[in-house]
Amino acid sequence: MRATFMYGAGDVRVETVPDPTIQQPTDAVVRVVRACVCGSDLHRYRSLPASGTGRPMGHELIGVVEETGSAVTAVHPGDFVVAPFSFQDNTCAFCREGFHTSCVDGGWYGSPETGGLQAELARIPLADGSLVVVPDTDPTTADPSLLASLLALSDVYLTGHHAAHMGRVGPGTTVTVIGDGAVGLSAVLASRRLGAERIILMGRHTERTDLGREWGATDVVAARGAEGVAQVMDLTRGEGSHVAIEAVGLMPAYEQAYGIVRPGGVVSRIGIPQYEDAPVGFGSLFGKNATLTGGPAPVRAYLEAGIADVLAGEIEPGRVFDIELPLTAAAEAYRLMDTREALKVALRP
Amino acid sequence: MRATFMYGAGDVRVETVPDPTIQQPTDAVVRVVRACVCGSDLHRYRSLPASGTGRPMGHELIGVVEETGSAVTAVHPGDFVVAPFSFQDNTCAFCREGFHTSCVDGGWYGSPETGGLQAELARIPLADGSLVVVPDTDPTTADPSLLASLLALSDVYLTGHHAAHMGRVGPGTTVTVIGDGAVGLSAVLASRRLGAERIILMGRHTERTDLGREWGATDVVAARGAEGVAQVMDLTRGEGSHVAIEAVGLMPAYEQAYGIVRPGGVVSRIGIPQYEDAPVGFGSLFGKNATLTGGPAPVRAYLEAGIADVLAGEIEPGRVFDIELPLTAAAEAYRLMDTREALKVALRP
Repeated sequence: MRATFMYGAGDVRVETVPDPTIQQPTDAVVRVVRACVCGSDLHRYRSLPASGTGRPMGHELIGVVEETGSAVTAVHPGDFVVAPFSFQDNTCAFCREGFHTSCVDGGWYGSPETGGLQAELARIPLADGSLVVVPDTDPTTADPSLLASLLALSDVYLTGHHAAHMGRVGPGTTVTVIGDGAVGLSAVLASRRLGAERIILMGRHTERTDLGREWGATDVVAARGAEGVAQVMDLTRGEGSHVAIEAVGLMPAYEQAYGIVRPGGVVSRIGIPQYEDAPVGFGSLFGKNATLTGGPAPVRAYLEAGIADVLAGEIEPGRVFDIELPLTAAAEAYRLMDTREALKVALRP
Repeated sequence: MRATFMYGAGDVRVETVPDPTIQQPTDAVVRVVRACVCGSDLHRYRSLPASGTGRPMGHELIGVVEETGSAVTAVHPGDFVVAPFSFQDNTCAFCREGFHTSCVDGGWYGSPETGGLQAELARIPLADGSLVVVPDTDPTTADPSLLASLLALSDVYLTGHHAAHMGRVGPGTTVTVIGDGAVGLSAVLASRRLGAERIILMGRHTERTDLGREWGATDVVAARGAEGVAQVMDLTRGEGSHVAIEAVGLMPAYEQAYGIVRPGGVVSRIGIPQYEDAPVGFGSLFGKNATLTGGPAPVRAYLEAGIADVLAGEIEPGRVFDIELPLTAAAEAYRLMDTREALKVALRP
């Protein structure tokens, strides 16, 4: 089969490798219908040291189950499924509490053992806990926009949902989303779906913030830093935002987030922090009782509801995919996202 | 009247100064029945630069209203009241949301303008929003233990309650309280009151942890650092604590807190952080979806319920006061708390 590997910053190759096989009785092998490139892949695209060994890439897919291990009971060959971006048993203490990305048996794609999902076929460990069937849907005849929206449930949309959920967004809430990437826009859509009263989107790419407005952003602030903070404070009568969703992962975005959050409010992070230490003392979080939350989204926790919402036409999160390319053009997909020529690229094996 | 001033680290003096007077129509003057020394006063006791001008000290009191400004309607001369450690209007947007310590009109005691509460008399700004009447209680005949418990509502107990409340402690929760000072012990009592299933107290002063056990601690861990973290992990089947209440304010306690909190759990801080930057990235908070919360307790939000609980005998938070001294001995009170000879000292004018 063909699969995508990164050999260093900017060096993405699609190569022919042996097909994945069932290794554990809990495994499934899935034939990929669509995969895609994630904003988090771009961190590596910009920084991965060059190596003679390619790193398998990709952690998002929709596909059709090809084969299952002897212990798999929840999915069957022929099932059309969504795979969350991490795998999990869905039964351990942490999964039961809704934090599947900390599953004691779970893990991440992209290691030599589990491979990546930007491929024609993928081995899915812990298939019963990880794959969720899309009912009554034939991927060979489904509308491309439906496929895109189902693919968005694998990571990007439910990551945005996680940010809003952890931020306790609800009716009456003012939310500010920092970042107009695919995850930030998804957080806008999820916040509206959770009933947010007002959604301020901080971003400067008009074609992206326009989608944000369609998805429920009531205000757009293009300014950053102190000026951006001042504009959000003006928009909120000087009080600040109940929830600040930080969908970037860089320190300036974090600083904006605690600058705009109101007393007792929540900074909810979904951009993977590219820093370890940050201000949390009296002058940033503590003095105003601001809460800091967020982390890798336990997509599995939200996936059934997300599939139902997409099939019912309640949301169309697949609109973040503005380009679809064949899998063989994965290198071009990375380049387009790195240069911001594309918001998010779907890959079609 | 006599009032307490600090002239520098270790230099506390009780001096005779003019009585406070009504300065704003929203003021009240209160005759102090009991005041006390706070753990947070000790930070200054150890670090305040020497000065020829004394800093007025104290922010906790119970007392009897002596005089009210023309705009005060909720309290009257003769009322027996508890004063939260900050003053607030109790009507602004942030007060309405339960975060009175961020009141737009509020503030802190201990400035030259508002004075301190370790005194015979105190001017209370925004009296309608700040003072809460203790019904049907005569402080001249009340049991000393009742007075102590009411005094504890001014700060220490409701600060512990705030930590548990922000940490979302409830039935089924495992809570670990880091710190066996008066606030930590109060957090134990408050966590039990909120229904925590298991309460692990981290502290090494047996006479204090014994009170913690009486108040609901199911386990005591004397070890600190990595060994303390390991012991808490052992006690929780390797899973960690749903809530880690950090009642110290120093970096090692913060590090213990994120070390013991389980995935999806909450680190709730009430020790005023003596640091600004701290680990919050993938390796500390983000990776396991841990939430960081806490801040200065909005005591006013919890005060009516606290008074009712104390009067009903449901809780006896005043047991944190192990010594009572006359106000004139305030310097000795600070010394005893600084050397840990006393847990918390009440002052009687």
